[in-house]
Amino acid sequence: MAISNTPSIDIDRLWATIMASAEIGKGPKGGLRRLTLTDDDRQMRDLFARWAKESGYSVTVDRLGNMFARREGREPGLPPVLIGSHLDTQAAGGRFDGILGVLGGLEVLRTLDQAAISTRRAIEVVNWTNEEGARFYPPMVSSCAFAGKEAVEWVLDRTDKEGKRLGDELHRIGYAGSAPVGGRPLDSYFELHIEQGPKLDAAGIPVGVVVGGFPTAGMRITITGETAHVGPTPMERRQNALVGAAHVAVAIDDIGWRHSAAEAKTTAARLDLWPNLPGIISERADLFCDMRHPAPTGLEAMLREVEIALPDCARRGRCNVEIAERWGFGGLAFDEELIGLIRSAASELGHATMDLKSEAGHDAYHMASVCPTAMIFTPCTGGITHNEAESMTKADAEPGVNVLLRAVLARADR
Amino acid sequence: MAISNTPSIDIDRLWATIMASAEIGKGPKGGLRRLTLTDDDRQMRDLFARWAKESGYSVTVDRLGNMFARREGREPGLPPVLIGSHLDTQAAGGRFDGILGVLGGLEVLRTLDQAAISTRRAIEVVNWTNEEGARFYPPMVSSCAFAGKEAVEWVLDRTDKEGKRLGDELHRIGYAGSAPVGGRPLDSYFELHIEQGPKLDAAGIPVGVVVGGFPTAGMRITITGETAHVGPTPMERRQNALVGAAHVAVAIDDIGWRHSAAEAKTTAARLDLWPNLPGIISERADLFCDMRHPAPTGLEAMLREVEIALPDCARRGRCNVEIAERWGFGGLAFDEELIGLIRSAASELGHATMDLKSEAGHDAYHMASVCPTAMIFTPCTGGITHNEAESMTKADAEPGVNVLLRAVLARADR
Repeated sequence: MAISNTPSIDIDRLWATIMASAEIGKGPKGGLRRLTLTDDDRQMRDLFARWAKESGYSVTVDRLGNMFARREGREPGLPPVLIGSHLDTQAAGGRFDGILGVLGGLEVLRTLDQAAISTRRAIEVVNWTNEEGARFYPPMVSSCAFAGKEAVEWVLDRTDKEGKRLGDELHRIGYAGSAPVGGRPLDSYFELHIEQGPKLDAAGIPVGVVVGGFPTAGMRITITGETAHVGPTPMERRQNALVGAAHVAVAIDDIGWRHSAAEAKTTAARLDLWPNLPGIISERADLFCDMRHPAPTGLEAMLREVEIALPDCARRGRCNVEIAERWGFGGLAFDEELIGLIRSAASELGHATMDLKSEAGHDAYHMASVCPTAMIFTPCTGGITHNEAESMTKADAEPGVNVLLRAVLARADR
Repeated sequence: MAISNTPSIDIDRLWATIMASAEIGKGPKGGLRRLTLTDDDRQMRDLFARWAKESGYSVTVDRLGNMFARREGREPGLPPVLIGSHLDTQAAGGRFDGILGVLGGLEVLRTLDQAAISTRRAIEVVNWTNEEGARFYPPMVSSCAFAGKEAVEWVLDRTDKEGKRLGDELHRIGYAGSAPVGGRPLDSYFELHIEQGPKLDAAGIPVGVVVGGFPTAGMRITITGETAHVGPTPMERRQNALVGAAHVAVAIDDIGWRHSAAEAKTTAARLDLWPNLPGIISERADLFCDMRHPAPTGLEAMLREVEIALPDCARRGRCNVEIAERWGFGGLAFDEELIGLIRSAASELGHATMDLKSEAGHDAYHMASVCPTAMIFTPCTGGITHNEAESMTKADAEPGVNVLLRAVLARADR
């Protein structure tokens, strides 16, 4: 079929699904608190599966609870086009992060149904389990296993703060599927997502062409002191892990400020203390830090500054300070051909685009090692995200979903 | 009876009770983790009650679970002498903090039994509930209610980190007694305790005469930021409550160092963050701080320095910072007459003494508003406490318990 005959998505129909999702796991401030594998997550999964089945799509659940809604193609044996994102949210998350990508994918399928358009290849829409990592650490863990970078058993053994296993929680909510995780050929992977930054919104540009990801480094820094009474213990005998961690947190933040003109960011994100009680000096702290820089050399420079800062933090905080764990992701480039399709689709529709690097992690990062992969960003109000106030309008969403439709269709018919 | 005929305590018998206690709720490093109203605490309470009953003492439990073992006097209607401390410990606590005071009291009664000495007034030994405050905040909450400073219902409603009520846990372990809390006349209150500081041990002096307490101020400082994604959010849009709290923790620690020559101390002791996850900037932090200075004017100066530091912490951490709650205790003087009895007893026994101010909080602080009150300190190795390595020898303990025996006896026969 000719691209010029491509129908348009029904933004009101899409919006109705997003608003139905926004009712499940409502946060106290109007956003969402739909942590993965909770009862709310189950309710959302059930609704997504029902919508898919009502349209005649098959729904397959793999061993990690990843859900694949499949609209069959004329040649079922060909590798399908995959569209996806996630339906779980942060503890204080918004109504669009991830959700737009899954329900935008569903809207693409529904639009093809309504226009009675068949495709050569099947198109599948995936809901990835535990993208956020807000309940089970680390994030993006199921697409990681899908890409064969971690074992399925390792993922099933992740535990939340209460010690509950991811695998057990999958069983509890009825989403421990039987399909194997990954290991099947895919034509391509598309992920539509809100930008989660302010650039598109500030510039008034509706479509972000995501050319790659910000190089990102993470680390867990362990600070070790000694328990003692907060009262009689002389200052010179104290080794307060909380104070040591405070010096490290300030140093990490300072590094981000020194590189902020280059759009770099650092975060002292999570701090676990023990025993963390009013009458006793804490002996142990684990500080989780995150560092991002558009250029790999910039990230390396920031990491060197961390190494330089830590001994001073140890001295001032009178504690032992060491990097206990390191990880990294994001320094990748998306597929040139898919990026070209996205640019063409936006151009046909008359939408201005902006090239962006994703500063957040996405399942697309892992999928890029499986098949040709690309992402489309939409604006979100003020760039606010991972916050219940996260917001966007129908006008923010519509161009991106139509671009997605055209790019997917081009790929599904090749 | 004449003081010169006073018998001596049996240090081996006392030590056997302390070592039996050290078996209940053992910590991983050889100390104790016997948090109040846990199953371990119940086991220790049962043992203390059994010992008391085997010696023929009555055991009364009040509505807050405070246990009173009473050796009757010749004139039961007279206000009794009370000896006591606590059998609960910190999460990583030692084998002597509190325990020496209760079991030392039991040893005083047993010594009188063995010597067939009767007293005019009854002598009671109390085990106060939740002295440490390690499970239910604040500490010393039951002696506080005994002294009529807080309502019993308020204490019963304290909750631990898991949301369990103190009152419910008292019922669960079978120590929700029926006796009223306080409201009865007492002749006097004596508390024997390890110093929890290094002075007696360093000077080789066996008996500390506690003349009063260090003025102590505490506060909960609330730091408010905003949740946001750790990745794309520009540095200048961030309000990371963890970073704000880190600046406050460093400032509080610095104030302690500026006054350390005057033996002052400050502690950034506990930090609660929300949501405290790797992928999201935290929006709220509660930092519990503690400040102690031997002189009230010194403490006031430190508190003024906090007020001056906080706006700068708010600016550097880009958060709202405010003192949400304040409390204070400790700036008291113990009873002159009881202090005189302690000095005389030590002198009769040929023990050198050192006058000290208590730097830690004790139930004796609250009891001082009920009846004449005094404390005796013993050395503890290196002053290490609120640490599983807390230690003392029989030779550290014996002089203090004999001084307690003599002072109590003088008071019980008056």
